[in-house]
Amino acid sequence: MRTSIATVSLSGTLTEKLTAAARAGFDGVEIFENDLLASPLTPEEIRARCADLGLTIDLYQPMRDIEALPEERFADALRRARHKFALMRRLGADTVLVCSSVDPDAIDDDALAAGQLARLASLAAEHGIRVAYEALAWGRHISTYDHAWRVVEAAGHPALGTCLDSFHILSRGSDPKGIEDIPGEKIFFLQLADAPRLAMDVLQWSRHYRCFPGQGGFDIAGLVRHVLRTGYAGPLSLEVFNDVFRQAEAAPTAVDAQRSLRLLQEETGTAALPEPVVPTGVAFAELVTPDDRPVTALLGALGFTRVARHRGKPVDLWQQGEARVLVNTGPAERRDGTRLAAVGLTSPDPAGAARRAEALLAPVLPRRRAPGDAELEAVAAPDGTELFFCAAPGGDGPDWRADFAADTPAPEGPEACRIDHLALTQPWHHFDEAVLFHRGVLGLSPQAGVDVADPYGLLRSRAVAGEDGGVRIVLSVGAAPTDDTVHAQHLALATDDVVAAARRFRAAGGRLLPIPANYYDDLAARFDLPDGELETYRELGILYDRDAHGAFRHCYTLTVGRVFVELLQRDGGYRGYGAPNAPVRLAAQHAARGLTGG
Amino acid sequence: MRTSIATVSLSGTLTEKLTAAARAGFDGVEIFENDLLASPLTPEEIRARCADLGLTIDLYQPMRDIEALPEERFADALRRARHKFALMRRLGADTVLVCSSVDPDAIDDDALAAGQLARLASLAAEHGIRVAYEALAWGRHISTYDHAWRVVEAAGHPALGTCLDSFHILSRGSDPKGIEDIPGEKIFFLQLADAPRLAMDVLQWSRHYRCFPGQGGFDIAGLVRHVLRTGYAGPLSLEVFNDVFRQAEAAPTAVDAQRSLRLLQEETGTAALPEPVVPTGVAFAELVTPDDRPVTALLGALGFTRVARHRGKPVDLWQQGEARVLVNTGPAERRDGTRLAAVGLTSPDPAGAARRAEALLAPVLPRRRAPGDAELEAVAAPDGTELFFCAAPGGDGPDWRADFAADTPAPEGPEACRIDHLALTQPWHHFDEAVLFHRGVLGLSPQAGVDVADPYGLLRSRAVAGEDGGVRIVLSVGAAPTDDTVHAQHLALATDDVVAAARRFRAAGGRLLPIPANYYDDLAARFDLPDGELETYRELGILYDRDAHGAFRHCYTLTVGRVFVELLQRDGGYRGYGAPNAPVRLAAQHAARGLTGG
Repeated sequence: MRTSIATVSLSGTLTEKLTAAARAGFDGVEIFENDLLASPLTPEEIRARCADLGLTIDLYQPMRDIEALPEERFADALRRARHKFALMRRLGADTVLVCSSVDPDAIDDDALAAGQLARLASLAAEHGIRVAYEALAWGRHISTYDHAWRVVEAAGHPALGTCLDSFHILSRGSDPKGIEDIPGEKIFFLQLADAPRLAMDVLQWSRHYRCFPGQGGFDIAGLVRHVLRTGYAGPLSLEVFNDVFRQAEAAPTAVDAQRSLRLLQEETGTAALPEPVVPTGVAFAELVTPDDRPVTALLGALGFTRVARHRGKPVDLWQQGEARVLVNTGPAERRDGTRLAAVGLTSPDPAGAARRAEALLAPVLPRRRAPGDAELEAVAAPDGTELFFCAAPGGDGPDWRADFAADTPAPEGPEACRIDHLALTQPWHHFDEAVLFHRGVLGLSPQAGVDVADPYGLLRSRAVAGEDGGVRIVLSVGAAPTDDTVHAQHLALATDDVVAAARRFRAAGGRLLPIPANYYDDLAARFDLPDGELETYRELGILYDRDAHGAFRHCYTLTVGRVFVELLQRDGGYRGYGAPNAPVRLAAQHAARGLTGG
Repeated sequence: MRTSIATVSLSGTLTEKLTAAARAGFDGVEIFENDLLASPLTPEEIRARCADLGLTIDLYQPMRDIEALPEERFADALRRARHKFALMRRLGADTVLVCSSVDPDAIDDDALAAGQLARLASLAAEHGIRVAYEALAWGRHISTYDHAWRVVEAAGHPALGTCLDSFHILSRGSDPKGIEDIPGEKIFFLQLADAPRLAMDVLQWSRHYRCFPGQGGFDIAGLVRHVLRTGYAGPLSLEVFNDVFRQAEAAPTAVDAQRSLRLLQEETGTAALPEPVVPTGVAFAELVTPDDRPVTALLGALGFTRVARHRGKPVDLWQQGEARVLVNTGPAERRDGTRLAAVGLTSPDPAGAARRAEALLAPVLPRRRAPGDAELEAVAAPDGTELFFCAAPGGDGPDWRADFAADTPAPEGPEACRIDHLALTQPWHHFDEAVLFHRGVLGLSPQAGVDVADPYGLLRSRAVAGEDGGVRIVLSVGAAPTDDTVHAQHLALATDDVVAAARRFRAAGGRLLPIPANYYDDLAARFDLPDGELETYRELGILYDRDAHGAFRHCYTLTVGRVFVELLQRDGGYRGYGAPNAPVRLAAQHAARGLTGG
């Protein structure tokens, strides 16, 4: 199906919005009136710009407060409409959105509304224009889609149809099944927006919190299926009012928007995508650093050994048990401090995974490959993290380890570890996009979001994970832009004995994050722990949590650059990430700034 | 009355919170448990720190999910409580907050709840501690203050009382009059929080959107009056969960909080403040600039003449009609670009106005006065703008103009103007504070807030004005931190003939902000303007609005540094500020960046 987006969904000038929409692969746009008014381009220039970009103008919107008015007021509305129809001809737009009236003088009289809409449609038809009438969820007398359709049907004018908007329908709890009673050719337009399930005033909810399909709590696919059964053949168009998108750059927002529509089309069977290929494990995590000494000191104290060196690049492979970490000291342009720059995901079908990612607009990374290097598929996540799709050892596809020359064999220590999860701080504007990306592109399942209190602001956090727990990524974002260095990324290593692992780390010269004594007094109040256990936790700075399934023990190294390491032990099927301890950990990290890790 | 604040209301570490509360003049604090857990200080050290700062610990909070539990669970809760009471003794806190249970296992049995609370109170009494039981608005079985009080009364234990929280009471729409039925000595604590009127889920509303009294939509003073009639003698304590305050610096938030309580005490008659002295006009606006040429070129083109020079400082007085602008080219440390740095407010009692401002914690500005200079009273607004309280000509107090030596007399032009309003962009964290400051300290009345769409984000805007329109200040803030230079401040000059003023400005070499042609096509659709009028507006870039009272015409100069000038004409009692035109103006300003004003 054709895809379209309302210009109000994107940030910037009209020209910036159109360019972003075209580059993200949209077929058309809805021109939001205020964007046109604020543009220095004439309607003819906007038309030409859209044509150059390969965009059709699918809708001009909105016209408000037109129907069910006293006759004198309606005459004035028709005068306004005549101006707008002339403008639309200049623009080359043939459909106009009319929202149900919110005017306090509007009359509760469906026959009057139908009659006036028919007269408006007649005027529109003279200009070759169609009128798409939509029920606003807060319309004065007409606020449901079925009511709007009854009025359109009563008007009986060929140039008058209805516009359906998923937000207006689902936010009121209307049953979308009734959409199937509307003939498809009378559905002139379909606007889509999702929204988080907030119990709040619907007007505020609509104006500030809409999001793209798949990012909120509505069943948008279910609604679209009802619409498709009517024979609707118009575009799927996004109309999203969102305070965050208004501030974000238009280009990535448009990509996020188009990705959401591609996933929606896959879900509704209207377009195919390459099959999802869910990664089964973390092959490696890659740290990029301008100075490898603090990082290798940290890894060494954690029991890692350098087991191999890349044949052509300044990249070393460090390993401990099943956990593999690459330490990359080049190239120079990436030297902006130590950070978690890339993740290798073990994939049953690396090429298929890359095809799906590309079809879902993930930037394919240029392959900085020397002759003979393995042909790894890689894409960038919304936060810039590089994702490499790696064949399982012995599986199909090139083996990333073939690029490395063996160095020292990895000793199997008594506390062999594996990568339990990665925690990635997201750029402020791209949190919902990141969750949708990890779900849609990688096939990971988002878990419930949590708010975590940092001493200097609230963080939103949400984990995405594979079915078997082989891949877990925790995404988090501050309530507003924050200093990157404060909320670092981290690598969590699971062991079967976190106490032994912590002791070995300390004995090897590693420094653990100090946890306040008050935390342990509280732990004693909350849990009846066996004798001595609390004292061990207190000594090492180990945090404790318990859920219905089991227990969780974890501790943290100091931070190196933007990265720190968590050592953890999951017992009895504990499912979380120790969120109740996060405020104490975050406060301790603020307190420890200035201490050096390793 | 004593004032107190919950540490959760402020940002930072516990030490930072305590310091900020003490410096802002609070008598005590509520220690929020998570703040204690995250602190490296022992309870004894926290007690000593509070004593050093002159703060009492009025409450330890919260204990949760204690009452109406199955006996086995209650025994566990008592075990936890014993730990907490021991902690409170170390801390020197004698009152604990117990919130009504939200536990899914809690039993709907008031007698059970009362019995268990009495047992908890007995245990507390052994430690010299009192239990203040509060109904959470989302409590499982007990969610209203009167229900909580019935349970406390039934328990009949001297160490058990109730805690009232204005948010929990007013968010549910409970009638606070029933508070008067509670004996004052059984109200162990009073927590105050205001909130904007949002129709949203009460838990989310409470956790993210509370604000200080006077900043939201609740009648906090009315509730406090009911409490006072019971004979309550405890502190007025603020407990505010707010995402913005969590990120803001603690010190100004604490000042904002204390100011709100002082205003609340004035309103409820529990403490007196110096009487409000409402300014009657704008004596001058002061521009600070490192280079006076662009500014003086702009003023010159606007018909201003330099009429006087300060006797001891590099400050010139420019005048046109009743509008006076100071141009200040020093000192060097203030040379961070051209900005609107100070406002002179004509006051019927400058000394009284300054006394009130000081009592409400406005920083009194050091008087950089040469011998012989007028003794002007000045304070800083929350955004750093310097406010000078000036005597009316011929009124009591020193005349600020006495410091200036006359230069050229001001010509009375045919389009004499006056300062209509000042528009000041607020720092991100201090919007609600700014509104409360202008209302409480200056006695200006806040008008309804509006959201304005800028191409790169939404702005919140709210005007404050004197009764007679002599002083109008428009405060605005972005939805998140933005580039200061984008949202400049402005000075709006009213004239009786904006068309003539605009023409004269252009003839004198001034450049007006270009407005897109599409705006005028839309104006023709919306309003039936007399022949030729639209063409004049289009030619000059004049924007047009109309309300129930009259019409508004306005245009803008290009921006110099962070400042631009609006020329406007109010006809027939138009009351607004042309908000419907703001999106077009903001987009035009973005488009004009790089063009130079003057």
